[in-house]
Amino acid sequence: MILGKVIGSVWATKKDPGLEGMKFLIIGYLDEDENFTGDYDVAVDSVGAGYGEQVLIAKGSSARQTKLTHNRPVDSVVMAIVDRYDIHDKE
Amino acid sequence: MILGKVIGSVWATKKDPGLEGMKFLIIGYLDEDENFTGDYDVAVDSVGAGYGEQVLIAKGSSARQTKLTHNRPVDSVVMAIVDRYDIHDKE
Amino acid sequence: MILGKVIGSVWATKKDPGLEGMKFLIIGYLDEDENFTGDYDVAVDSVGAGYGEQVLIAKGSSARQTKLTHNRPVDSVVMAIVDRYDIHDKE
Amino acid sequence: MILGKVIGSVWATKKDPGLEGMKFLIIGYLDEDENFTGDYDVAVDSVGAGYGEQVLIAKGSSARQTKLTHNRPVDSVVMAIVDRYDIHDKE
Amino acid sequence: MILGKVIGSVWATKKDPGLEGMKFLIIGYLDEDENFTGDYDVAVDSVGAGYGEQVLIAKGSSARQTKLTHNRPVDSVVMAIVDRYDIHDKE
Repeated sequence: MILGKVIGSVWATKKDPGLEGMKFLIIGYLDEDENFTGDYDVAVDSVGAGYGEQVLIAKGSSARQTKLTHNRPVDSVVMAIVDRYDIHDKE
Repeated sequence: MILGKVIGSVWATKKDPGLEGMKFLIIGYLDEDENFTGDYDVAVDSVGAGYGEQVLIAKGSSARQTKLTHNRPVDSVVMAIVDRYDIHDKE
Repeated sequence: MILGKVIGSVWATKKDPGLEGMKFLIIGYLDEDENFTGDYDVAVDSVGAGYGEQVLIAKGSSARQTKLTHNRPVDSVVMAIVDRYDIHDKE
Repeated sequence: MILGKVIGSVWATKKDPGLEGMKFLIIGYLDEDENFTGDYDVAVDSVGAGYGEQVLIAKGSSARQTKLTHNRPVDSVVMAIVDRYDIHDKE
Repeated sequence: MILGKVIGSVWATKKDPGLEGMKFLIIGYLDEDENFTGDYDVAVDSVGAGYGEQVLIAKGSSARQTKLTHNRPVDSVVMAIVDRYDIHDKE
């Protein structure tokens, strides 16, 4: 999974019927030191994540293993809100 | 998902029978500031996207979760036309 | 999908039984201006592509959605021969 | 699969119900000479890996082929603890 | 698929039960001119590949389409030993 931070939203009126009611969040990827890497992704929110929160993202077919995204044309999902993460050992 | 802009088309007469009638769009990837990243993708259009429109792309097996692309040898689909996207928080 | 050009072949006698009779093509990736990007891929040919022809490649599980590649250990397939592609809009 | 080393943990209280009880490890990727590459991943632990241990990671839908991760929104799993790895031939 | 060369092995005693008896090979990726690219992968051997041999690798869910790897947490498999590969056309 990837660590990221919610930095924005995407609005899309015209879309696949299976996407109705989904919230598309723009996620800035974070590195181990909580800095942005410069990459981003658009993910469906399945846990009620808010702006500025750190999240975990699952991608690919794994992004369709939530109740909300099952069988939908979605390849990225926010499946957890991160309380904190620690680096313990990196010599 | 990835944010992109429709910048071209691909014509292919000789192809897998399952691809008959599909429209192949060339999508230039966009960064958070709506600039092209230099990367592109060829995606099947499932929402009637036109040249110059901003779109969302789903990739991999997720690209086969639309009615049009189900069980087809397609790994990228335009599944939404973007009205707009905003970056709210990126300190 | 990815745009590429058939630039070579791979011969492999000892292989998974499910691959018997398949033709493995080396595909040089093309950018938007029909130049090689420097990356390549080995793909199974499902449409009778010849050397020098431009092709479309589907990857991952989508590469197994042709009659030839169904349930085979193949992650890349040539599923269309490109007649031409045009860039219409890239300001 | 990818070789990595367990370097940290992620805590997430609010998450998809299917993730309850899973341990999220931060894995620093290793190159052939056992140095960190600078990339990392967050993977579910299915083998009881501890800090500083070298591990093998399976990604994508393959990460859901363990008893613990079956049908869960997880795209990366630690599926083996590495005793050692050797480079025998690289001329 | 990717062209590579068998350059090493990984030993792992503690692992997912589904991986019992599998041989994990370290594969150095090759470019079109048979030079190492610097990237590598750990793949399960399904064809009896030896050190120094050139091989083809299938990745992702396609890596689980051999008899040996079916339903196992494996995302990379050696599914062919390469006799030779030729570049015919690259102007």
